[in-house]
Amino acid sequence: MIDLRSDTVTKPSEEMRESAHTADVGDDVYGEDPTVNELETRAAELVGTEAALYVPTGTMGNQIAARVHTDRGQEILVERESHIFKWELGGLAQHAGLQVRTLNGGERGIPTPEQVKSGYVEEDAHRPGTGLLSLENTHNSKGGVAIDPKEIDAAAKAAHELDVPVHLDGARVCNAAVAHDVSPARFTEEIDSVMFCLSKGLGAPVGSMLAGTEDFIARARRTRKLFGGGMRQVGLLAGPGLLALDNVSRLADDHENARVLAENLAGVGGLSVQSPETNIVLVDTEQAGLTAGEFLTACEEMGVLGTQFDTHVARFCTHWDVSQEDVEVAAENVRDALYTQDV
Amino acid sequence: MIDLRSDTVTKPSEEMRESAHTADVGDDVYGEDPTVNELETRAAELVGTEAALYVPTGTMGNQIAARVHTDRGQEILVERESHIFKWELGGLAQHAGLQVRTLNGGERGIPTPEQVKSGYVEEDAHRPGTGLLSLENTHNSKGGVAIDPKEIDAAAKAAHELDVPVHLDGARVCNAAVAHDVSPARFTEEIDSVMFCLSKGLGAPVGSMLAGTEDFIARARRTRKLFGGGMRQVGLLAGPGLLALDNVSRLADDHENARVLAENLAGVGGLSVQSPETNIVLVDTEQAGLTAGEFLTACEEMGVLGTQFDTHVARFCTHWDVSQEDVEVAAENVRDALYTQDV
Amino acid sequence: MIDLRSDTVTKPSEEMRESAHTADVGDDVYGEDPTVNELETRAAELVGTEAALYVPTGTMGNQIAARVHTDRGQEILVERESHIFKWELGGLAQHAGLQVRTLNGGERGIPTPEQVKSGYVEEDAHRPGTGLLSLENTHNSKGGVAIDPKEIDAAAKAAHELDVPVHLDGARVCNAAVAHDVSPARFTEEIDSVMFCLSKGLGAPVGSMLAGTEDFIARARRTRKLFGGGMRQVGLLAGPGLLALDNVSRLADDHENARVLAENLAGVGGLSVQSPETNIVLVDTEQAGLTAGEFLTACEEMGVLGTQFDTHVARFCTHWDVSQEDVEVAAENVRDALYTQDV
Amino acid sequence: MIDLRSDTVTKPSEEMRESAHTADVGDDVYGEDPTVNELETRAAELVGTEAALYVPTGTMGNQIAARVHTDRGQEILVERESHIFKWELGGLAQHAGLQVRTLNGGERGIPTPEQVKSGYVEEDAHRPGTGLLSLENTHNSKGGVAIDPKEIDAAAKAAHELDVPVHLDGARVCNAAVAHDVSPARFTEEIDSVMFCLSKGLGAPVGSMLAGTEDFIARARRTRKLFGGGMRQVGLLAGPGLLALDNVSRLADDHENARVLAENLAGVGGLSVQSPETNIVLVDTEQAGLTAGEFLTACEEMGVLGTQFDTHVARFCTHWDVSQEDVEVAAENVRDALYTQDV
Ligand SMILES: [Ca+2]
Ligand SMILES: [Ca+2]
Ligand SMILES: [Ca+2]
Ligand SMILES: [Ca+2]
Ligand SMILES: [Ca+2]
Ligand SMILES: [Ca+2]
Repeated sequence: MIDLRSDTVTKPSEEMRESAHTADVGDDVYGEDPTVNELETRAAELVGTEAALYVPTGTMGNQIAARVHTDRGQEILVERESHIFKWELGGLAQHAGLQVRTLNGGERGIPTPEQVKSGYVEEDAHRPGTGLLSLENTHNSKGGVAIDPKEIDAAAKAAHELDVPVHLDGARVCNAAVAHDVSPARFTEEIDSVMFCLSKGLGAPVGSMLAGTEDFIARARRTRKLFGGGMRQVGLLAGPGLLALDNVSRLADDHENARVLAENLAGVGGLSVQSPETNIVLVDTEQAGLTAGEFLTACEEMGVLGTQFDTHVARFCTHWDVSQEDVEVAAENVRDALYTQDV
Repeated sequence: MIDLRSDTVTKPSEEMRESAHTADVGDDVYGEDPTVNELETRAAELVGTEAALYVPTGTMGNQIAARVHTDRGQEILVERESHIFKWELGGLAQHAGLQVRTLNGGERGIPTPEQVKSGYVEEDAHRPGTGLLSLENTHNSKGGVAIDPKEIDAAAKAAHELDVPVHLDGARVCNAAVAHDVSPARFTEEIDSVMFCLSKGLGAPVGSMLAGTEDFIARARRTRKLFGGGMRQVGLLAGPGLLALDNVSRLADDHENARVLAENLAGVGGLSVQSPETNIVLVDTEQAGLTAGEFLTACEEMGVLGTQFDTHVARFCTHWDVSQEDVEVAAENVRDALYTQDV
Repeated sequence: MIDLRSDTVTKPSEEMRESAHTADVGDDVYGEDPTVNELETRAAELVGTEAALYVPTGTMGNQIAARVHTDRGQEILVERESHIFKWELGGLAQHAGLQVRTLNGGERGIPTPEQVKSGYVEEDAHRPGTGLLSLENTHNSKGGVAIDPKEIDAAAKAAHELDVPVHLDGARVCNAAVAHDVSPARFTEEIDSVMFCLSKGLGAPVGSMLAGTEDFIARARRTRKLFGGGMRQVGLLAGPGLLALDNVSRLADDHENARVLAENLAGVGGLSVQSPETNIVLVDTEQAGLTAGEFLTACEEMGVLGTQFDTHVARFCTHWDVSQEDVEVAAENVRDALYTQDV
Repeated sequence: MIDLRSDTVTKPSEEMRESAHTADVGDDVYGEDPTVNELETRAAELVGTEAALYVPTGTMGNQIAARVHTDRGQEILVERESHIFKWELGGLAQHAGLQVRTLNGGERGIPTPEQVKSGYVEEDAHRPGTGLLSLENTHNSKGGVAIDPKEIDAAAKAAHELDVPVHLDGARVCNAAVAHDVSPARFTEEIDSVMFCLSKGLGAPVGSMLAGTEDFIARARRTRKLFGGGMRQVGLLAGPGLLALDNVSRLADDHENARVLAENLAGVGGLSVQSPETNIVLVDTEQAGLTAGEFLTACEEMGVLGTQFDTHVARFCTHWDVSQEDVEVAAENVRDALYTQDV
């Protein structure tokens, strides 16, 4: 089975397992886990912030950020297809009481400065003020597009001119960095906080980093406790996490494999394939006369796994546990699947 | 001063004041205010529901409805310019923890059945389910357009097919009824609850009605207490409220006055005026080379009051305390204002 | 029927009804209702604060205060039998996300400074900080006891030493003032905000006042809108409210009537009667071999209404619509009821 | 340094580290981590429930339980010194909007059935109904007392008679089981859900289990995602967790060491030592003329670490990484510390 459902499915490498075996640990609730402390220091360096915090999931990282940046009763501006809005169980209202206002970031899921300005709400007697702008890069729902750092800068500057802080859901910001051949820190120049995942393309078994100023991270640490995310000898996961930080440049392989997959699928039996910028390949099945669900069932029978994104959109995601040969085989199997299908 | 800021500014009639003077009252928290009880019965009849509840404001009525219909952690579908979303201080997240999902209801602010279906979210491991659809008629931000009952039916049926209840913010639903020459009850045929205001065009000093099934109203009554809306000898307001129920057909005058106002303003000094369907006149000031704020300041100096809706949109609202002569004078003064302005 | 259920059942006087008839009104959401404005000014004077706000109910006043004084995620200290904790539908958690910490105020429901200090929680990594102390005077559940202003001062000072603001639920603070022969303002010397009801012993049909600093009231006004408490031509209620402010000294009659009622009930058929300090008479029915429910049913058959407070505690409340003769008759009827009862 | 601050400070054994090295893993968000699945099955068996869920912390387990069992706007009954109330950042109000009602569980922190009944609130027009009773065993703040299963049964039955579900914060329920020489499952006979920690005396580096019916766990799993607790290849922690389940009987050593420590400290320099029932030793420093803070500073200088529980109460906690010799040395050092102190 070639598993292209998500880059979260990667299994930890032998080296990572060894680091779990040997990591120096302590009670991180007391701040005494040296491996976690090292991970937090190095993660902050990687994304160019003062400090960072280990969190069990990207969802927790995003939700903590939303809560820490805002005051009770505000609004948050998000892209209308963003993960923080679509896939986090409505947490923005549940955890932080925020009213969501969506911006249409277009094909690439990045709001323009003008959109940020027009989405901004000035607090008055009837309206909650805007308390946060959240951006996403790479943008998952848009097919892993790697938004240009200048576009991130521009949207963030527009928010800052209105005294609105900016959070970046950078679950895959390292993929964006590789795609643009810049450091991940390039994306945070105008950003107040960023979350990025160790457990996706970087290959760690568990965990994400939330990064920002020292003051922000101090408040995030307390909020992590409220969420039940304050773990103990979590150096066992921080060890693999440290190794994950070395995997940034390796993401180029995933991108190349995505390109190969897309190329080999293009035009097959009516599939329409979006040209990938990173490690995500979106396949439109409508012209093939199939729903995404039917298409994925056929793929699964041929040993290839993907996920459904929309009625007629399937997603394949390349990652560390998938080689170029794997994606070539996958593409061939998908082709066979389609021609076997009664379409 | 001709006050066209809102139909909320109407002062109670002498007859209403007399009814406040003489109303039979009791403690409504105990359900013992006969005037309130009569008002609730008659209001339910007017909008064709089993029961109704007196609430101090339309905002409270809408927010109670949102909370009673939904479960913790759900989404609500609203039109993107709707009052419940824009002007109620983010209450949907604050009072009910709801994540808002907006639908673009277009020029007239009414989502199509297809939009409702595509906005619907099925509850799953990552997504909050859709718990409520809220519609608005007349639609305030769209200029008081009177949405056709069939369009309300269609959107509501689409929701019901997905097991989603539907609330109607009918703050001005009686204006819609007059515009379409139907009973207000015509708008609730496919609706689970409706809120309408006594204190707008109907002329009551204070209050709105929330209407729905007996079970819904029983739960709404308890929730009203949570909100601090359970008043005592409020028959003093219910008396005028009962008289307000007799004012539905009178709204035709406001609509005619709005038409006259719009006609007399059309083309004046570059103003672009939306043809009114009810008692609201939206004026676009951009071609006049003015912001709405500048325009309204000029109007005020000439004795005419309106409100700002957007950077270049001003709103005038006709009502009981404004005669046809008043709007003619108002239009003339606005004309003079514009020609006096340095434009 | 002699209705001693609550001082909320009073019906407005002819003078109050006339003031509803004639009050100068305007749209209070715009701040343009002169009668409301006068009421807010005079109410602030009465309780010795910078400013005040008219709210439809005492519950809304208390809940707004709790929300405005605190930050997200704090604790509130309340007396364990206080109204804000027991009878407001859990609003402290619902509206403000506050964790309640209860203090045992003893027989008279007033925490000592030592209790305040020991209930205080310093914010740290695991604990929410204390954000507010709420006191109550007169204390309803304790039988309308009129707490000495020095005890209020002492508890409030203890809170202030810990930088914790203090709210006074003074629904019946005017009764406390009369009982102690001081101005209501005497109770707010060390208090940051106070809510008092116009619609209880003062006889207004509807409404309460929330009072505090100008800054506090500005924030409370906005929060009132969030709660749906921003009414329009509410001068119709503010007129009677202004007259209610003149009724403070009249409360002495209610207190005297309560004393007479208690005296006449004492020892009747095993009833144990708490000596009243204001207008509330608590009757313990246990020695009479009756539950409070059974006792009240018997009373009702004899034309006397009260309310159940606990399994064996009934409450009678004197008020404007009840004369000394009424309470004498009531006592006699209760006596008869008990001897008729099969006890 | 002999670290008696908490049983959370234990470092994973070599065997646990090896299991992290070799554990078969998968993406647990897809339910595909075989080691997690095995852990959940075995944990459910241990505590005698249908199902169980791995959560990163006990706090998250408790808070999820509170949210899943209750409806919006209810009350929760908790012991007044319980962890869920005192040490979880006010999460009950924040995550679930619950109003807390505290019961005084006395010396041993276990409410009687009568207390449960009298704390129960029937939902009505003014009162939130009671939605959950939460118990704690062993009771941390009371010094790790091991509450008898019959007392748990009795309190839980009282709740069930009122249709109120019961959660057990059994962070250290295995210690209670060892102290009473029963299976942990003995404590859940009348319980609807239980949380217990792998990361305390059982020695796992990270994690807790939430256990209950299959339906409850299905809902808890979704709520875990909302909290950001849905981790990926978390078999790396589930492997050590499985080994931790084998450590239940080993807790007897900790209990014996606590007994030895208490015995050796008793009477030293005015210290008053509570006789331990499990692995927690509470030391009252008041008679020694020291605050707990001063006492612990002195201890630390002599190489012994504990935590402050109250102004004059320090806590020592025995665990896997501390031998009988360690506690003897610790006691001796504390003795020396006290006699060195200027007291
Ligand atoms: Ca992984
Ligand atoms: Ca802020
Ligand atoms: Ca009006
Ligand atoms: Ca529902
Ligand atoms: Ca009254
Ligand atoms: Ca441990």
